[in-house]
Amino acid sequence: MSKIVKLGFLGCGNIGGGVWHLLDEMHDELLKRDDIDLRVEKALVLSIPLARTDVPTAILTEDAADVLENPEIDIVCEFMGGEHPAADFMQRALEHGKTVVTANKMALALNWDKLDAAARASGAGLYYEASVGGVIPVIRSLTLSLEADKIDRVMGIVNGTTNYILTRMAREGSDYADVLADAQRLGLAEPNPAADVEGFDAAYKLSILASIAFHSRVTYDKVHREGITGITAADIAAGKEMGYVLKLLAIGKRDGDTVEVRVHPTFLPGDHPLAQVDGSLNAIFIHGAYCQDMMLQGRGAGDKPTASAICGDIVYAALNDRPTRPSFANTPEPDPALTFTDDWRSRYFVRLDTPDAPGVLAKAAGVFAAEGISIDAMMQKPACNGRAQVVFVTHETSEKAAEKAVAALNGDDMRVESVIRVEK
Amino acid sequence: MSKIVKLGFLGCGNIGGGVWHLLDEMHDELLKRDDIDLRVEKALVLSIPLARTDVPTAILTEDAADVLENPEIDIVCEFMGGEHPAADFMQRALEHGKTVVTANKMALALNWDKLDAAARASGAGLYYEASVGGVIPVIRSLTLSLEADKIDRVMGIVNGTTNYILTRMAREGSDYADVLADAQRLGLAEPNPAADVEGFDAAYKLSILASIAFHSRVTYDKVHREGITGITAADIAAGKEMGYVLKLLAIGKRDGDTVEVRVHPTFLPGDHPLAQVDGSLNAIFIHGAYCQDMMLQGRGAGDKPTASAICGDIVYAALNDRPTRPSFANTPEPDPALTFTDDWRSRYFVRLDTPDAPGVLAKAAGVFAAEGISIDAMMQKPACNGRAQVVFVTHETSEKAAEKAVAALNGDDMRVESVIRVEK
Repeated sequence: MSKIVKLGFLGCGNIGGGVWHLLDEMHDELLKRDDIDLRVEKALVLSIPLARTDVPTAILTEDAADVLENPEIDIVCEFMGGEHPAADFMQRALEHGKTVVTANKMALALNWDKLDAAARASGAGLYYEASVGGVIPVIRSLTLSLEADKIDRVMGIVNGTTNYILTRMAREGSDYADVLADAQRLGLAEPNPAADVEGFDAAYKLSILASIAFHSRVTYDKVHREGITGITAADIAAGKEMGYVLKLLAIGKRDGDTVEVRVHPTFLPGDHPLAQVDGSLNAIFIHGAYCQDMMLQGRGAGDKPTASAICGDIVYAALNDRPTRPSFANTPEPDPALTFTDDWRSRYFVRLDTPDAPGVLAKAAGVFAAEGISIDAMMQKPACNGRAQVVFVTHETSEKAAEKAVAALNGDDMRVESVIRVEK
Repeated sequence: MSKIVKLGFLGCGNIGGGVWHLLDEMHDELLKRDDIDLRVEKALVLSIPLARTDVPTAILTEDAADVLENPEIDIVCEFMGGEHPAADFMQRALEHGKTVVTANKMALALNWDKLDAAARASGAGLYYEASVGGVIPVIRSLTLSLEADKIDRVMGIVNGTTNYILTRMAREGSDYADVLADAQRLGLAEPNPAADVEGFDAAYKLSILASIAFHSRVTYDKVHREGITGITAADIAAGKEMGYVLKLLAIGKRDGDTVEVRVHPTFLPGDHPLAQVDGSLNAIFIHGAYCQDMMLQGRGAGDKPTASAICGDIVYAALNDRPTRPSFANTPEPDPALTFTDDWRSRYFVRLDTPDAPGVLAKAAGVFAAEGISIDAMMQKPACNGRAQVVFVTHETSEKAAEKAVAALNGDDMRVESVIRVEK
């Protein structure tokens, strides 16, 4: 006897439509494989007359309660996007004992404590594999496969839009604004691109990823965030000459009880596995005491990959009545035993515009020396109009020391054009 | 109240010792994370006086029944290697209702039906994440994350020894025998290297991987197997000139009800994600109708990574009383609805030794044309002693057509030095 599992959709646009199509196409196969009969019972839309969807009109509704409080529905799939009302709807569904599947990193990262509390109270499941890295099974790998390990580092390319922009800037030597405009024209960047290019999206994802990896809630406000809007073609070109590739990385590190979480443009050596992840691909590099280095890569967005990840959660939830939840106390605040530092250690790429005059290099080098920072590499480009471009790459030092050096370098005639962290 | 879960080890060498150390180090953390108290109850060794292990002598035993039939033991971890008696012991443990965790691809691939039947009969779990790709969570990703998808292709670098040898041959331009000897000296290849270099190990793993990916048992005897012993420095050098990297790949493809499974040296374009997986790393490339292209990479061997994967299974088993087994009927024979083909389609790199005389190229090209095979690229190297080296890379064609062309090319004066399949 197959098990009938009824689904309710919140929203039915591209993602919801993709999930509907997958479930339709795979229905009989999933019945055969897993003995589950998945049926979409209701789909909430803003307006039934205006809904453009292949989902049968008969199951559309404009009343959220038809999904959230419908005793027939077992699993609620949220495809609305944005924080509200998505988070409130998910909370209501969980309070009514319905398992929730979501890809909404913003609503989850900002309301995880409330959602988790509601899930625990009612015994419902809360699944969100598609919220980080799209179809990449990173959440389930961390919670189910690496559960016995001690993860000390995650580094992810988790935003396809910015990776597409940076990849094209590097290939074409183009400026940020030109590539962004083209990406917008192609539908690969939003008309208002801030969520992607300012790093908000990556920061929500890092908050989720680091919480799971480090077994302790990492709230969104702990994430240091810088976007790619200040990146120039000159930065990418200078980095390339020194063997580096620029990526917007979401980095989480844990050393004992000290945690750092930061999203910022980052230079990586050209032979780093993440350096070769181009275009709209996503990838997450993981390091643990036992697993050592590991990388998972795949499609971070797109209707079909997102549908695959969401339906993976749906099938998992349908087969597991007793939900598997992340094994950390999901308190509103992070574990008080942890310290979140903003004085992490990194290497720094510092690009200077200097007068083409004797003693300039010595002066700059002296500033680094004064902060106890040693130099790994230096490059000076031929002068133009009496100005020279000088690039230093430091050995590992602390963020605060780097900040002091940069402040000291900026002077009447010398100007720091850019500071980009270098990871390995 | 924490849940006490008692483990029994079969074998206690490098891998068993690694697992013991991980469990020892992570015991309190796992108690905190998951409320499970994991205890190693008994460890079977050949001889207690001769055992070289950090596991306390008090729990060592020379009697298999102390593990397999011990009512105290919940989970049996097999670290013996080889087919027998490992498979028999695992079967006995399953028959006694004990969940089994193993990394033994040979014992599993050759005895899966019996082991699965025993597990089903007693309701015990059977877990084997570490059997394919070491710590790479590919089994659980396929069974738990991609369960709703339709996987049509897996391509894996699943044997670290051969990948190490091929990587060094490519970097150094060295011959196979020299690199193998050095790998043996360094302990990276076995004194008898056949299991690795002849592709047996990869074929066992492909049998497991393809069974899971395609939801139907792919028995070991269906796997076409070729090793790397015939690969020369000249092949790798010629391929490199044409932009290819050589890997020993385990390839599984499913198109409707037609399945192909093959292990052989394979040229990949230099920008393929698998082409960049070097040394002893493993990686598995997956393509599905929905997830599209995905790749998972990590350590395929080594005490710590293997311990991480095995302990991931142990924790998963400890937390899931109701085992999650692969969703296919694990019959002794493959699903009769499937056809296993050995006439797959591929591209072919064909290296010829020819006389340096007029008309030779036309003759060779004519042979390909006669079989309806079109040529994608050709390279002729300067002649030496009246002989020339000519390389053809074909467009996609069938294996049988390629075989016929190769037979026709081999003649009185022309000799086919090597035929290597090219995938993309």
